Amino acid sequence: MPYQPIKLDEKLARFSQHWSPRVVAEMNDYQFKLVKLAGEFVWHAHADTDEEFIVLQGAMRIEFRDGEVALRAGEMFVVPKGVEHRPCAEEECSVMLVEPRGVINTGEAGGAYTAANDVWV
Amino acid sequence: MPYQPIKLDEKLARFSQHWSPRVVAEMNDYQFKLVKLAGEFVWHAHADTDEEFIVLQGAMRIEFRDGEVALRAGEMFVVPKGVEHRPCAEEECSVMLVEPRGVINTGEAGGAYTAANDVWV
Repeated sequence: MPYQPIKLDEKLARFSQHWSPRVVAEMNDYQFKLVKLAGEFVWHAHADTDEEFIVLQGAMRIEFRDGEVALRAGEMFVVPKGVEHRPCAEEECSVMLVEPRGVINTGEAGGAYTAANDVWV
Repeated sequence: MPYQPIKLDEKLARFSQHWSPRVVAEMNDYQFKLVKLAGEFVWHAHADTDEEFIVLQGAMRIEFRDGEVALRAGEMFVVPKGVEHRPCAEEECSVMLVEPRGVINTGEAGGAYTAANDVWV
């Protein structure tokens, strides 16, 4: 049969690099990406799109210029487009991102954390 | 602080009706919906959009005219647009759907299972 489930645990086991999103599925022109976080990311924004975080394992927080949100496994948050944010995780945290194909992880901030885009796992 | 996590377990605890998607978040013109499945749904298709299923609790299968896919918690599948499918669950199963705002649960099939759209929880 051509119909196979996408098993998130199996996909997560295939990579260890932090801050490097891996695509697991596409829906129309959107992508579902897995990413492992640890430490503090760079401040950035996505001018043209909202960005959705679902925590799969562990805990993280998203800092904003005027506050923050703490997220654990089974919790989600949508960062509105244009809003500066900084994802952080005290310990390794696995997250599913949903966003349009082509979104760069560091938005318009660039820098050393900028990951290759459209890498599948 | 205006920043609050969306807690999926809490949202699921707020409704019990089967086959009645509840919106928990929006990202651009897409919606994240929770739905509880039990039994067999109607055959239907969505002519204009893919439809994404992530199983949160329990197990389900999606039948196609030429096969099926079995999904458990932590697994996902994207039904391509235009493809006839029938979601089924032997026992209650909780799922997150991601699809464009405005998608009707029964596609163009209509019938008794057609749920009100854009109902938030």
